[in-house]
Amino acid sequence: MPLIELDDVERAAQRLAGVAHRTPVLTSRTLDERTGAHVHVKAECFQRGGAFKFRGAYNKISSLGGDTLRRGVIAYSSGNHAQAVAIAAALLGSHATIVMPEDAPAAKLDATRGYGAEIVAYDRWTESREEIGARLAEERGLELVKPYDDPLVMAGQGTVALELLEETPELDVLLVPVSGGGLIAGCATAAKSLRPGVRVVGVEPEAGDDTRRSLAAGERLRIDVPRTIADGLQATEPGELTFEVNRQRVDEIVTVSDEEIVEAMVFLFDRLKLVAEPSGAVGVAALLSGRLDVRGASVGVVLSGGNVGASRFAELLASRSAAPAG
Amino acid sequence: MPLIELDDVERAAQRLAGVAHRTPVLTSRTLDERTGAHVHVKAECFQRGGAFKFRGAYNKISSLGGDTLRRGVIAYSSGNHAQAVAIAAALLGSHATIVMPEDAPAAKLDATRGYGAEIVAYDRWTESREEIGARLAEERGLELVKPYDDPLVMAGQGTVALELLEETPELDVLLVPVSGGGLIAGCATAAKSLRPGVRVVGVEPEAGDDTRRSLAAGERLRIDVPRTIADGLQATEPGELTFEVNRQRVDEIVTVSDEEIVEAMVFLFDRLKLVAEPSGAVGVAALLSGRLDVRGASVGVVLSGGNVGASRFAELLASRSAAPAG
Repeated sequence: MPLIELDDVERAAQRLAGVAHRTPVLTSRTLDERTGAHVHVKAECFQRGGAFKFRGAYNKISSLGGDTLRRGVIAYSSGNHAQAVAIAAALLGSHATIVMPEDAPAAKLDATRGYGAEIVAYDRWTESREEIGARLAEERGLELVKPYDDPLVMAGQGTVALELLEETPELDVLLVPVSGGGLIAGCATAAKSLRPGVRVVGVEPEAGDDTRRSLAAGERLRIDVPRTIADGLQATEPGELTFEVNRQRVDEIVTVSDEEIVEAMVFLFDRLKLVAEPSGAVGVAALLSGRLDVRGASVGVVLSGGNVGASRFAELLASRSAAPAG
Repeated sequence: MPLIELDDVERAAQRLAGVAHRTPVLTSRTLDERTGAHVHVKAECFQRGGAFKFRGAYNKISSLGGDTLRRGVIAYSSGNHAQAVAIAAALLGSHATIVMPEDAPAAKLDATRGYGAEIVAYDRWTESREEIGARLAEERGLELVKPYDDPLVMAGQGTVALELLEETPELDVLLVPVSGGGLIAGCATAAKSLRPGVRVVGVEPEAGDDTRRSLAAGERLRIDVPRTIADGLQATEPGELTFEVNRQRVDEIVTVSDEEIVEAMVFLFDRLKLVAEPSGAVGVAALLSGRLDVRGASVGVVLSGGNVGASRFAELLASRSAAPAG
């Protein structure tokens, strides 16, 4: 029995109405020419907090009871999930505690604090965030908001595809970045229900292809922490629940190199005037690098987030110029 | 008697319907906090050709008779106007000739050619583009499409404000970049008709304040070619027709420094995930630098274009880091 269905995504959409941004779907003549397809980019860089993560976090937290909300929520993340939980908790009159490594970038710590969350810093070399999180949850009665392995989180992320298909119902292919698998689980659920013939393709960094391997093996496999610029896609194994959904509803996984990701970020900047973080650009990278033949197709691509920062963007650009040609 | 009225802008909007992109209006909690205002950014970086210029060019060219369209149009520009005329001419089955300096960036020459235009290159040190343009227009019977000093071009640009006010009718202040003055002439015409109490504020680079000086003097004044990173705002004097409109409908001009422009570009990248070219960022620069007190107001800002390129963006960022503190 599947863990989530279209109904769950539609209920999430109702909860998110007027709270999450309905992000624009953008097109580019040049992108169409380069791919031979009709490409529709769902720009979640414009979502609250700069990434799709707000959808799942808000759907989860808004379903909690009053007592739980009063006690507060907890999450461990050094990335977009932290900010999403902080924003959602503040909007819902709850209080968020975020367990973050003490050497996380100051900008991320500040941003998360700026949304009203309490940061609990830990030493990532000597302490376990899971243990700290479990202890705090126990002591304070906090509810843990997982980044992906939760049906309400998956359903919230699925509203990305729901909105995309409302605007472009004729999609043949849908490309979605894959880390723990929550975004693609929700998107595949919505897309396959509304458009049964659609091909749902996940995109992972070459070094972090745990979901590709796991789907091929038919069971969850664990890999080492991948070395990739796509810091949001460094999961070491698929989620337990997300894997159950994705083994049924995802057609294929393709991978892209770090170089291809940077090329896609530059293309999005130059041509679509969009800021994509490395993890957010993998779908466009798969298209531009020709990893997938989509000629003649109507293609949706989820650009999942834009939290890269101008300085880091310039660094990535410089590393590209400095790399040997060929 | 004013040269353009709301009617002209509304007719332009009808011509542009389904042809120009209706660009999104974006907001940012951080921008609101930094300014104490409610700020609405009209993102013309997503317009066809990457800047607002398409609106005016298409409105002008679509009003030409069949014989004129068959002979073709001509423009001189090394910037966004060139691409706008090329795209509009191609869409209308006409043919564009663009007079561009032979040392213009290859990317701009290629982009303009890519839209199907014929490039006539000239030596900007020894030849006059006006003379070359006039000769070609005469020989080939081409219609000159001016970048701003034409009522149909002004009316087309005014559709930016028309759309913005449709979405946010309660605007108190409207900020618009000023070069030759066509964009602000059209926008002021639409805004003052729909919302008579709105304060229309032009923004110029400090070094290129020809319109500010001219409005203060009550007559068109000429300045030297300004040294500024805002390459789209290097006009040396207001247009004849645009000045007639702007002296009646523009309330104020503020200026911003190149440093403030780069700060605004970085802010737009980091926070709004938007790519702005220097000329496009001057409105946000005026707000962030506190050049204008807008506390408590509902403010519209036209982000006029995003044609900067990732490499140039990184260069501007590096120049900022390299500059002495203080």
